[in-house]
Amino acid sequence: MGYTDLDWKAINSIRMLAVDGTFAANSGHPGAPMGMAPVAHVLFQKIMKFNPKNPKWVNRDRFVLSNGHACMLQYSLLHLYGYSLSLDDLKQFRKVDSITPGHPEAHDTPGIEVTTGPLGQGIGNAVGLAMAQAHTAATFNKDGYPVVDNYTYCFLGDGCLMEGISSEVSSLAGHLQLGNLIAIYDDNHISIDGNTNCAFTEDVPKRYEAYGWHVVTVGDGDNDLDSIEAALKECQAVKDKPSMIKLRTTIGFGSLKAGSHDVHGSPLKAEDIKQFKEKFGLNPNEPFAVPQEVYDYYGEQAAAGAAAEEEWSQMFSKYAEAYPAEAADLKRRLTGELPKGWEKNLPTYTPSDSAVASRKLSEIVLTKIEGSLPELVGGSADLTGSNLTRWKDSTDFQPPSTGLGDYAGRYIRYGVREHGMGAIMNGLSAYGTILPYAGTFLNFVSYAAGAVRLSALSQVRNIWVATHDSIGLGEDGPTHQPIETLAHFRALPNCMVWRPADGNETSASYYVALTSKHTPSIIALSRQNLPQLEGSTLKNAIKGGYTLHEEEGADVTLVSTGSEVSICVDAVKTLASQGLKARVVSMPCMEVFDSQPKEYKLTVFPDGIPIMSVEPMSTMGWEKYSHEQFGLNRFGASGPYKDVYKKFEFTPEGIAKRAAATVEFWKGNTIRSPVNRAFQQII
Amino acid sequence: MGYTDLDWKAINSIRMLAVDGTFAANSGHPGAPMGMAPVAHVLFQKIMKFNPKNPKWVNRDRFVLSNGHACMLQYSLLHLYGYSLSLDDLKQFRKVDSITPGHPEAHDTPGIEVTTGPLGQGIGNAVGLAMAQAHTAATFNKDGYPVVDNYTYCFLGDGCLMEGISSEVSSLAGHLQLGNLIAIYDDNHISIDGNTNCAFTEDVPKRYEAYGWHVVTVGDGDNDLDSIEAALKECQAVKDKPSMIKLRTTIGFGSLKAGSHDVHGSPLKAEDIKQFKEKFGLNPNEPFAVPQEVYDYYGEQAAAGAAAEEEWSQMFSKYAEAYPAEAADLKRRLTGELPKGWEKNLPTYTPSDSAVASRKLSEIVLTKIEGSLPELVGGSADLTGSNLTRWKDSTDFQPPSTGLGDYAGRYIRYGVREHGMGAIMNGLSAYGTILPYAGTFLNFVSYAAGAVRLSALSQVRNIWVATHDSIGLGEDGPTHQPIETLAHFRALPNCMVWRPADGNETSASYYVALTSKHTPSIIALSRQNLPQLEGSTLKNAIKGGYTLHEEEGADVTLVSTGSEVSICVDAVKTLASQGLKARVVSMPCMEVFDSQPKEYKLTVFPDGIPIMSVEPMSTMGWEKYSHEQFGLNRFGASGPYKDVYKKFEFTPEGIAKRAAATVEFWKGNTIRSPVNRAFQQII
Ligand SMILES: [Ca+2]
Ligand SMILES: [Ca+2]
Repeated sequence: MGYTDLDWKAINSIRMLAVDGTFAANSGHPGAPMGMAPVAHVLFQKIMKFNPKNPKWVNRDRFVLSNGHACMLQYSLLHLYGYSLSLDDLKQFRKVDSITPGHPEAHDTPGIEVTTGPLGQGIGNAVGLAMAQAHTAATFNKDGYPVVDNYTYCFLGDGCLMEGISSEVSSLAGHLQLGNLIAIYDDNHISIDGNTNCAFTEDVPKRYEAYGWHVVTVGDGDNDLDSIEAALKECQAVKDKPSMIKLRTTIGFGSLKAGSHDVHGSPLKAEDIKQFKEKFGLNPNEPFAVPQEVYDYYGEQAAAGAAAEEEWSQMFSKYAEAYPAEAADLKRRLTGELPKGWEKNLPTYTPSDSAVASRKLSEIVLTKIEGSLPELVGGSADLTGSNLTRWKDSTDFQPPSTGLGDYAGRYIRYGVREHGMGAIMNGLSAYGTILPYAGTFLNFVSYAAGAVRLSALSQVRNIWVATHDSIGLGEDGPTHQPIETLAHFRALPNCMVWRPADGNETSASYYVALTSKHTPSIIALSRQNLPQLEGSTLKNAIKGGYTLHEEEGADVTLVSTGSEVSICVDAVKTLASQGLKARVVSMPCMEVFDSQPKEYKLTVFPDGIPIMSVEPMSTMGWEKYSHEQFGLNRFGASGPYKDVYKKFEFTPEGIAKRAAATVEFWKGNTIRSPVNRAFQQII
Repeated sequence: MGYTDLDWKAINSIRMLAVDGTFAANSGHPGAPMGMAPVAHVLFQKIMKFNPKNPKWVNRDRFVLSNGHACMLQYSLLHLYGYSLSLDDLKQFRKVDSITPGHPEAHDTPGIEVTTGPLGQGIGNAVGLAMAQAHTAATFNKDGYPVVDNYTYCFLGDGCLMEGISSEVSSLAGHLQLGNLIAIYDDNHISIDGNTNCAFTEDVPKRYEAYGWHVVTVGDGDNDLDSIEAALKECQAVKDKPSMIKLRTTIGFGSLKAGSHDVHGSPLKAEDIKQFKEKFGLNPNEPFAVPQEVYDYYGEQAAAGAAAEEEWSQMFSKYAEAYPAEAADLKRRLTGELPKGWEKNLPTYTPSDSAVASRKLSEIVLTKIEGSLPELVGGSADLTGSNLTRWKDSTDFQPPSTGLGDYAGRYIRYGVREHGMGAIMNGLSAYGTILPYAGTFLNFVSYAAGAVRLSALSQVRNIWVATHDSIGLGEDGPTHQPIETLAHFRALPNCMVWRPADGNETSASYYVALTSKHTPSIIALSRQNLPQLEGSTLKNAIKGGYTLHEEEGADVTLVSTGSEVSICVDAVKTLASQGLKARVVSMPCMEVFDSQPKEYKLTVFPDGIPIMSVEPMSTMGWEKYSHEQFGLNRFGASGPYKDVYKKFEFTPEGIAKRAAATVEFWKGNTIRSPVNRAFQQII
């Protein structure tokens, strides 16, 4: 409270930077930053705890801009508070290779917590960050030592609220009673199509109350700083519910076109900028001219943040004396490194071990490693018993008042909310103390495509336990049988897709997924039992692709993944009976295989031998590794899985028939290994 | 009202068929059918209007099973009412090539309106069906001639309500005041993970009231048939809001494990079936034994439905006399055939016409054809001005009371709800009188992946106008620039992906999309201007791929799509200056090209010439048509689009450099056209 002209000067400086930044870029969204500058100012200057000199301080408050197109607001704040983001960076807004891209990217820009822009993702990340705080506090805080007690604040707009993902995560946040989460809804009545009354007339406060949230309304977000501050403090005080502040603002406040759609997605015109600056006492002749007193004023809060971290560090030093194991564990987690020797717990198998479904092999891995990887926090989108994602005697992550678990619990009941689960995992990862994995059917990872994409772009380590990975799921039929899914995520950059063939390969999948600090993984797992293969080892499989079965003078190479590798091994015998020699390559992960040296890859796919791929889904992508492809470029079928395999001829005989045709077709041709390429790809 | 023992015998017969069907399949979900049999009985026997002998009668009430795993309920009803679904078909439940697959598939089974199972889709389809009814009524009904006045009923469970897509479509349905939509929420407190209290504790009635729905609660859905009927009638009477009935039921009612998760997804044990049948007076020794009196009872309602259609037909005959044009239009629409000569309105271009963005070319197509295609109903996910999906002077589809449009309006304001939009389009298509298209950025079609997949599986004709289709969108940056998206949907069976290079190809895209009655299409369109190409014609482009630029004795073939085709044409000149001859192939649609005769394809990709593909996104899939690939297997960059193209070398020079490397690399090798294959794919 007690706001002065200096506060308004600061607020108008934020607006000015957004106006000048978008004008310089000749692109971008000035309207939302202009409308939200007052609440941003109050939040950052009076409420939030952060140290611009150390954007990674674990106990900082997290800020998420779910309406990421308003990023000039966030970039301006980061600059004004003294993060490593210069005025020149602001001038480079939306320019190639700047650290101020068109939407906020966490891996690019210091102070950006999560990558937003695709609407609805940020509120999901915020729920994840708040869950991570609750979990970390329950795990590490001790009497007198509040190691983490930060809040998560999230700005969001109508667009975020219309996206279904916001419903998924908000319903779960209410269930989880996340009192550390405060969302500020920019109720500006404007979306790209014009007034929100054309498509969005629901009662937002009532909807959020239905989710179990505390909701406050502030009627004049343009002017009433006291009410904004009071609302934020009221929400901080509500400890057993997430809060939403519905804040009425005017989009493009200060522009001649304030309150209209025209200021949403285009820079202001020069004369509009002039009147805006004159109206607010800013220098109309110089762009990006921040008054020194504004820098000074924000500098005070930055200094207070640095002092707060210093105070926290002293507390943490004492904590480290009292609880050395916990302190060491927390510090280690924040580096992203796993505990030494954890990998010794990975199970290995020999061919005499019995056949097991790879979803079950995944459960065995999780059960064996969870003790040595305390940061591992799992969950499933209401398919726990099918995905086998929960180790025995795990505790659920739940509000203690439910009697169903506690916040230190490491198993999250996400409900049937795949997209929200993906965005929450991104938030859990971003917090820094958790390594999340979660399960659903492979086919329904597609529901979460928007979130998986941002995992890959923002380089976070998440693991999708994607079971029921093919027509091998059988009776559930075509609505549940993935055909295009592997191709989709294989085509997504910086996302590993694993499809292990047996126990050793399943362990290898987890090994690489868990040790790849900047890459998410999808592990595709079978419903049906798979034999333990001769020739599969952890060491082989972590190369992504390897020769499982070698054969002198081979006529053909069969390359396959997951549940079809063993069928290919059987097809070798069928082919032998026809006088044909076949090699078998197992390729659990294309992306990892691609990263191997060319010499190695040529031993797997040598020149001179035609290659045929075998995978009962889209053949797309397999042309890269093979001359001929046996796949399923149609939807599957409902029936017992063995009947479905038979219908589509994914049997030793069906494979042998096509392999023989491949040999015949390529006879007499010079056969180059597809590993040979004319030039390097841009990756 | 006035329910008798016969009603209960009928209800228990439904339960029995679900029990015996899942037992025979040794797979499936008996619990929900057993719990929902009472409401299904009341709805079908007392409320709904349908004629089993003509499942396509346009004015039938629509029934959607959004919790599609409960399909034995729907199959049983269809059988009992005399649809073309025999007792043998029920016995073949979940068997290969039966018409009773594990989840309902509309194209497989008479009486199934839409394909459901993936949770949340059905309620979206139901909203689309209700919107279609409102639009069709507003377009065709006349005083005294209620050509369509049907309701849409939808069963849904907790899983559907947790999925974000249900929020998107329900919020829109409330906004649209769809009084013809009645959803019945099976509140059985059980999901796969156990009791819903572990993840789903929101206040559903309050949430739906917040969306603007009328909500009724029935406390005893197991026994209280009168209250169920009263609730349904109350909802029918509410004309300006969609309605939800929250119905408390017991999952697996009648089983020893009633009310528990154990009856959700597995058949009952033999002894449980025995006690169930004995308890309800059914023959415990014979499976699938429906009492004749139950058939007779349901037969009465079937006969009433046939009579209702007969009465409607007489009314429609008179309507056809009074309004011959309207009647003819409606009849034609129901066949799926377009009006004769509509295609004459498609614009064509010559190279002297100016460069235009293909999103703008798409707008020109829509503007030119909308007059001749009255069934075309468009929309956009809040990006109308960017997608250019609305022709000038279009009327919005809105409740008249909003003053923003009317139900005869042909432009839908979907809001920022891509997934919901996709499911609604599936419902609009399924109604039979509408050909829907809708716009968003290509990158955000991924948000709707679940719905697009079901468009393809259920063989409906929808069109996605997917603008901002590459790094060419420029400043919005990597969060918005698709990399994996084309590969994803190209890999999806029965879904055409178009990426036209200029005006003629844009017209061709629409021509094929609009005339493919059983296939959805995604048309990827540029933000930036594209020149009209020499060699592009409608006739060429509808082949999916064709030789745009031929060159005698060519050293290399360049194959490209969309905005990069003209850059390849420029690269030909660069290569010529280096003494290399290049051909250019334009490939606007791989799926359509694939369907051409081999001889034609070999003229496009002749043997002996190396082929290099050019597309600034994932190279996945291009190996099928080329020996080398120039693409972008990483995320894009934020900046003015020309700078972004330059950064990644998608310039004539960058293409020429790689083309020269391709020529060099393949020199001295026998080069087979990739069109040659050893065997036929399964499609
Ligand atoms: Ca990938
Ligand atoms: Ca396709």
